[in-house]
Amino acid sequence: VKPAVVPRLYKGLRDFLPDQMAARHRLIETIRGVYERYGFVPLGTPAIEHLDVLSGSAGQEAQDSIFRVQNLKDRGEDESALGLRFDLTVPLARVVSQYRDLPRPFRRYQVAPVWRADKPDRGRFREFIQFDIDSVGVESDVADVEIIAALCDTLEALDAGPYRVRFSSRRILNLVLQFASVPAELEVRILRQRGTPHERTDVERRPGTDVFRVLDKLDKIGAEKVRLEMGPGYRDDSGDWIPGLGLQPSQIDRIESFLAIRGDRRDDVLRQLSELFRDLPNARPEIEVLERISRRLEMLGYDDDRAIIDLSVARGLAYYTGPVFEALLLDAPQFGSVVGGGRYDDLVSRFLGESVPAVGASIGVDRLLAALVELGRINLKKSTADVLVVVVEPAVMDDCLSMTFELRRAGIPTEMYLGSRGIGKQIGYADALQIPIAVVFGGDEKAKGVITLKDMARGKLVSDQLTARADWLRERPGEVKVPRNQLVEAVQHLLARRED
Amino acid sequence: VKPAVVPRLYKGLRDFLPDQMAARHRLIETIRGVYERYGFVPLGTPAIEHLDVLSGSAGQEAQDSIFRVQNLKDRGEDESALGLRFDLTVPLARVVSQYRDLPRPFRRYQVAPVWRADKPDRGRFREFIQFDIDSVGVESDVADVEIIAALCDTLEALDAGPYRVRFSSRRILNLVLQFASVPAELEVRILRQRGTPHERTDVERRPGTDVFRVLDKLDKIGAEKVRLEMGPGYRDDSGDWIPGLGLQPSQIDRIESFLAIRGDRRDDVLRQLSELFRDLPNARPEIEVLERISRRLEMLGYDDDRAIIDLSVARGLAYYTGPVFEALLLDAPQFGSVVGGGRYDDLVSRFLGESVPAVGASIGVDRLLAALVELGRINLKKSTADVLVVVVEPAVMDDCLSMTFELRRAGIPTEMYLGSRGIGKQIGYADALQIPIAVVFGGDEKAKGVITLKDMARGKLVSDQLTARADWLRERPGEVKVPRNQLVEAVQHLLARRED
Repeated sequence: VKPAVVPRLYKGLRDFLPDQMAARHRLIETIRGVYERYGFVPLGTPAIEHLDVLSGSAGQEAQDSIFRVQNLKDRGEDESALGLRFDLTVPLARVVSQYRDLPRPFRRYQVAPVWRADKPDRGRFREFIQFDIDSVGVESDVADVEIIAALCDTLEALDAGPYRVRFSSRRILNLVLQFASVPAELEVRILRQRGTPHERTDVERRPGTDVFRVLDKLDKIGAEKVRLEMGPGYRDDSGDWIPGLGLQPSQIDRIESFLAIRGDRRDDVLRQLSELFRDLPNARPEIEVLERISRRLEMLGYDDDRAIIDLSVARGLAYYTGPVFEALLLDAPQFGSVVGGGRYDDLVSRFLGESVPAVGASIGVDRLLAALVELGRINLKKSTADVLVVVVEPAVMDDCLSMTFELRRAGIPTEMYLGSRGIGKQIGYADALQIPIAVVFGGDEKAKGVITLKDMARGKLVSDQLTARADWLRERPGEVKVPRNQLVEAVQHLLARRED
Repeated sequence: VKPAVVPRLYKGLRDFLPDQMAARHRLIETIRGVYERYGFVPLGTPAIEHLDVLSGSAGQEAQDSIFRVQNLKDRGEDESALGLRFDLTVPLARVVSQYRDLPRPFRRYQVAPVWRADKPDRGRFREFIQFDIDSVGVESDVADVEIIAALCDTLEALDAGPYRVRFSSRRILNLVLQFASVPAELEVRILRQRGTPHERTDVERRPGTDVFRVLDKLDKIGAEKVRLEMGPGYRDDSGDWIPGLGLQPSQIDRIESFLAIRGDRRDDVLRQLSELFRDLPNARPEIEVLERISRRLEMLGYDDDRAIIDLSVARGLAYYTGPVFEALLLDAPQFGSVVGGGRYDDLVSRFLGESVPAVGASIGVDRLLAALVELGRINLKKSTADVLVVVVEPAVMDDCLSMTFELRRAGIPTEMYLGSRGIGKQIGYADALQIPIAVVFGGDEKAKGVITLKDMARGKLVSDQLTARADWLRERPGEVKVPRNQLVEAVQHLLARRED
């Protein structure tokens, strides 16, 4: 006997059962509605791309995060290393380069799965859906304003509860390096062996921008460890040595004086920033970008309770070159930022050799969905049907089928029970699927020219209150009989009552 | 200098630019609307599956059609051969086996891309979207009726023009083998060498069901070649020898007498079929299935002009075990069947070792889209925006931004031109994107407290008629000035007029 195949998924992959899938679809359509109101247009690209298109000049670590794809039938005629896309920005850059007659600016949205071969973790999956908007070919920071506004509108359309879009600028961070005299290259001492008395020390060269990588951990590891990692390094709780960037205390002080700039009001943060950088001649134009964005957001009604300037926002990705932003649900901070984005001017240059200004944002749809589910802010519904037609006996099958189609044609989502079990199990099925109304029709009903309608929720509610079986039989909670020819009206009436 | 990466796609893959993508989305949402009205519930599964889950006992050829997926970082800890799904039915079978507490019947829809590593061809791609519905755990052929009805409703909701759902049954085809005395195993003579006088002949054993594979080619190669392929074989136009199945002329005659049963009326086909098989004792129950389906379709109003019985429908896939169906757009026969489906009772047994009755259908979304585009039955629109706000000069940027958001908040999809080009280019951009209305606002307008609205279509229409430039300047075709505070109302008025 051939052994059966075990039904299972690869680690880090998930199924979306109907309740989750329906919620995900509603979430996506809500976002789409906002983005289309902003005039963004949809784009679709295949999951498989040439590996060089995907990886460009990325390092080995980044390249290894790409799932490789192989066509066993393709032996040389179109020889090519292939991979699954890991984001939607690289395919966008390819499209912009490949179709030279696309209108510019090109303001597109794309919602699609992406794949990363990284080790899965709590909330980190190997396939997940991103919903991106980007304006390509736009220098004006009005585009940045628009994207921050669209993110606010989206989170409000989703009824996601209190949130903050936090924004800053990579150019401001670059000024911090100058402000703290961080050189372009750092010499980092690495202790190779762990726990031994004679630790061997190596020296590695690191880019000065590694400071951002460390700053990005602020939320996760706290200010003290960030200070140690910028300085001499430290031994973490598990005993591993975390090498430091080797900055001097005076340098770290300067960086910290920058990080100390916090405030609930954008004006206030900008004032402090201007003060701190007053002696840096090239700071003014960069601060003015943030001032302009802030002022226009205010003009459009996006106040400090929706979008704040947070100078600790660095966004890990190396390709950002200007304003960067992310969004946090205040009631679900454990989910981290559900949106990330910023301005990047060089991504298209991989293909064209010229830089094209662009700004965009990516919503982590699945993370956002998980947060909304946790917050009870999205309805998980197991059925699409509002009505289950219960088939009491085979003799009335045709009647039940006719009723089912009457309801469907009246626009009422209806399922007819197609299994072969008794009435009790059928009612249990409606209950398990959370179908609100059951239409019960058997020989009795047929003889009398009536149908029995059962309001499932009401029936449950009342029968919880009626203890005596006799009461139940007399009351028949939530049940009502109506003439057969009033089926549609009666169901519509029950549904309307439920929605009150 | 590092050579630039060439922006390109792997052969057989496609981008969907905004007009196509928007049309595809509308098509998908229309189908979803119908299926949800039938109470089917959505399911989502990942693109990547374990290879044994995907391939089961499939032959090498089928296995090779699966794109292999590799995680370079996964060195043994979860060692597994992986692949991209090639359909949505196998993942469904996995889900049904894996989540044992799913309510049964499980009536789900899934719309998602699938991948096949086969050689691409005109209209045959390596990634394409399928939209499937299936009822799992249902023995009753009412489920088959429902699926045929849903397909009819879908094609009507899509306004796809005249169509036919054609159905038959694999069990009826099995009867044909009995009727024509085709043994379970055929001995097929193969001529190994081509064109030489002394051709070496081998004998291969083929299953009797290979007759179906040949019958399936009827539409493609015609009746004469089908007859030759069922008999001695033939040499095709390119000189290749197509081995025959070796049936005797009397056997082929019987098969042909079956295929000769054609008719526009289901009743008529069923009558001829009963007549032909009158001496086969086990034919009656199988014919009764088709009679029952036909009668119920009629009861629900799905007449012969929508669903016909076509005994030549075989559907290639080996796993069908009962009724099979497909759909054809009568005005676009060159696209072949845009839907295929049928009853399959053994797919889940790969995992569970028990058979579970199921029936379903799959819409080839991209093929259907291509057909609808060719027929001019779906609108290709390049923009989502109804309005482009033209920024005449930088000084009025903030006014333009405010107007843009006023319109968006009134629910009017609006784009503000974010590039840095002149008014003529901006109008050209609106034209290229087919945006119907342009709002023009400059210093002039600001001073007078007005805005200029430009009806793009009307402007084009009228200016085609006005030849003299003087006329044009006097008439300003399609342009109207309105007070600044009447922006939203005026745009709504113009849009309403367009829709008349």
